[in-house]
Amino acid sequence: MINKTIGVIGLGVMGSNLVLNIERNGYTVSIFNRTSSKTKCFFKKNSEKKIIPFFTIKDFISSLKKPRCIILMVQSGIATDNTINNILPYLNKQDIIIDGGNSFYKDSIVRNKNLEKKGFYFFGTGISGGSEGALLGPAIMPGGNKEQYKVIESLFKKIAAKYQGEPCVSYIGPDGSGHYVKMIHNGIEYSDMQLISEVYALLKIGLHLNNKDISNIFSDWNKGELNSYLINITKNIFLKKDLQTNKDLIDLISDKAGNKGTGTWTVQNALELGQPLSLISESVFFRYLSSLTSERNIASKYINVKSSNTTIIKNKPVFIEKIRKSLYLGKILAYSQGFSLLKSACKHYNWNLNLSKISKIFRSGCIIQASFLNKISQEFSNNKDVKNLLLTSFFSSIAKEYQESLRSIVAYAIKTKIPVPVLSASIAYYDGYHSSFLSTNLIQAQRDYFGSHTYNRTDKDGSFTSNWI
Amino acid sequence: MINKTIGVIGLGVMGSNLVLNIERNGYTVSIFNRTSSKTKCFFKKNSEKKIIPFFTIKDFISSLKKPRCIILMVQSGIATDNTINNILPYLNKQDIIIDGGNSFYKDSIVRNKNLEKKGFYFFGTGISGGSEGALLGPAIMPGGNKEQYKVIESLFKKIAAKYQGEPCVSYIGPDGSGHYVKMIHNGIEYSDMQLISEVYALLKIGLHLNNKDISNIFSDWNKGELNSYLINITKNIFLKKDLQTNKDLIDLISDKAGNKGTGTWTVQNALELGQPLSLISESVFFRYLSSLTSERNIASKYINVKSSNTTIIKNKPVFIEKIRKSLYLGKILAYSQGFSLLKSACKHYNWNLNLSKISKIFRSGCIIQASFLNKISQEFSNNKDVKNLLLTSFFSSIAKEYQESLRSIVAYAIKTKIPVPVLSASIAYYDGYHSSFLSTNLIQAQRDYFGSHTYNRTDKDGSFTSNWI
Repeated sequence: MINKTIGVIGLGVMGSNLVLNIERNGYTVSIFNRTSSKTKCFFKKNSEKKIIPFFTIKDFISSLKKPRCIILMVQSGIATDNTINNILPYLNKQDIIIDGGNSFYKDSIVRNKNLEKKGFYFFGTGISGGSEGALLGPAIMPGGNKEQYKVIESLFKKIAAKYQGEPCVSYIGPDGSGHYVKMIHNGIEYSDMQLISEVYALLKIGLHLNNKDISNIFSDWNKGELNSYLINITKNIFLKKDLQTNKDLIDLISDKAGNKGTGTWTVQNALELGQPLSLISESVFFRYLSSLTSERNIASKYINVKSSNTTIIKNKPVFIEKIRKSLYLGKILAYSQGFSLLKSACKHYNWNLNLSKISKIFRSGCIIQASFLNKISQEFSNNKDVKNLLLTSFFSSIAKEYQESLRSIVAYAIKTKIPVPVLSASIAYYDGYHSSFLSTNLIQAQRDYFGSHTYNRTDKDGSFTSNWI
Repeated sequence: MINKTIGVIGLGVMGSNLVLNIERNGYTVSIFNRTSSKTKCFFKKNSEKKIIPFFTIKDFISSLKKPRCIILMVQSGIATDNTINNILPYLNKQDIIIDGGNSFYKDSIVRNKNLEKKGFYFFGTGISGGSEGALLGPAIMPGGNKEQYKVIESLFKKIAAKYQGEPCVSYIGPDGSGHYVKMIHNGIEYSDMQLISEVYALLKIGLHLNNKDISNIFSDWNKGELNSYLINITKNIFLKKDLQTNKDLIDLISDKAGNKGTGTWTVQNALELGQPLSLISESVFFRYLSSLTSERNIASKYINVKSSNTTIIKNKPVFIEKIRKSLYLGKILAYSQGFSLLKSACKHYNWNLNLSKISKIFRSGCIIQASFLNKISQEFSNNKDVKNLLLTSFFSSIAKEYQESLRSIVAYAIKTKIPVPVLSASIAYYDGYHSSFLSTNLIQAQRDYFGSHTYNRTDKDGSFTSNWI
């Protein structure tokens, strides 16, 4: 069992809220921050709580009973390494360092190795849910030594989000796997958000609906199989008024979408592992495109193509239902790619991850929390070896049923000049994935033609090359 | 002026052919290969030529007059570093090392820096055109010291491919820029090939054309604005018979498309620089998807969705012309993204590259050689600061004229269940790029909602955050 005093370094928004969460769950928390004024200020606000401020690393570490448990909530990268180096001289063997920051999983692999060599335990731990999650209960993805996980398990279970009473945490796997799973979570978050934004364009531009109508639609959808945190906040966003102008705030927000790089990491990883991840990739690239604001403004005047689609949607409810089905199928396809990438990483890094449990962790506390994660969990529980969600009965049935809607909505969007990069990538992936013939045989012929790169044949085994000229 | 004896290390297919090319152009070539049997064998075949074999690095280097010019044609990565380390002890200051391998441009930046520090000159040099190009004249992209380039210029001009008498080489820019431009070339090659393969699927599956008909269509297209090396070899590929079975070879080639990683590099670089590169990215991911052969076979049986599109193409010539326009516009959009990425790298690395000259280099010798590169060169010559090909009069006019064809072809493919990931990404990019409103304002609202990531406004400057709940 863990000691009743936990150390937390780093009092940013996430760190501060996590301290309050831990304290509320019955622990005493020793706190330290590089800038001592932050420590003082935080302590002043929370002086009645079981929180003890420290202003030197030495005093901070001394306040913790061995084996110590120290949670780092500092910036990822060099700041995390510096913090680890600063505390190391004061640690004893068996002490546990938990990195709860947004670290790159490869860094966690290296840190794990280096620290275990020195006799310490290290848990690279993905914590998702933003500041509110940190305070009220985040989804927690700890990677590290399995035996030692028992020591910190009760702490994590207490502070984690709960889904119908079940804590949204479980041991993920060795070294970098916790932060890896967090990265996949974030990548999927990109496609979830982009899909919702494409659907918004269809409702707004295609159907000329106002924000209140759109909010109502998301509200309806949130009652069904699309039920999720992101659909819920989207419903709220369309109702929010700008305090100054009393206009709908959404209409005043610039379309320049930022990013913090974790979507990019996910795509880079897919490129490294040779796995298709086109939906998340298109989501990341569309954020980049959205940021080319001045170029887009110039292009809109320079090119000025008017929509030529005069299709009038006669039956709006039917059309809206098709959009809903497209969104849900797009979502399924994004998760199919994301979980297949995760499976591929398991093989590559020799991690034996439990995808059913991981899906369960995502059910509360984090940004992608959604009812349909129960279904994913169920399918991986039925068959842990399934390679793709499309090869499960539940998801393949929905895909079969919804694909015609997705086709007609994408075709409509393309004719109406509404860019739907991820919905388009969805259907291309779906059709490509279940096709036993792809026209990429031509690519292989071309590669052999100009570079003697060889090809396989359909009628016999082996590697072949031809004299093409 | 360069000495009349050039040293070449590495006698693989590319290296051997480059030696013959250099010798044919009036130079004596000293050759060395790590495995001496290769050197002996190559010399035996070419003993009547001005080629001198060496079996120790010391003798090899001694055979060259100062300042020496040594071309490395070895494997990229560690092999290149090892070779450089092996020759360094024998070199004198001012000696020139040319790395003609397929090195990663970041490695070339590092090597350039390290070698110039030691007083040597280093040219990371992209050489494109496969084995045939190496022999008969490749496109050459040298990056390094501008002053020193004069020393090797005449050699490069002689051995390079010629486009209407003009050598396909010119000084690219500092350090890694030569290999960077080669990387962009290869990335574009991926999208060119994928686009052609999507069009092939449309002709084969959509129009039920046989290989001979398809070959004729590519042959026709090659006479017009699509004229290019890849269209030309594609035309030939469809006529090639398998010697054993006398069947059309293309029908016996597996659809598992391989890759050597340079497309992946290009996408990774775009992710790093925050530039949209969706067409090349979709091309890379579709090759990955094509390689999941056994999964696809399982999925095709498991999912088994029949095409429901009963659209019969009444006017085949009109439809084929629409496909042609789609291919050309897709190509333009892929190059738009590729060249914009190149511009972005110029800024990032402080390279002042001449995009007009670079387009000219691509006109012969390399895989993406095509008539329309003249147009690209012309547009960058008219205005070197243009940020995107879509903002030039020539390409924007074509886009305007051809976009309706692209829309209808993609919509047709989606309804017919033919995966066209890059044609789909093309139209999404086109519509996104020239849109002054994108629905990504919703993404920014969501990010602010759950993570206080702030947003910009359309009605005033600054960074804002709202209390959403």
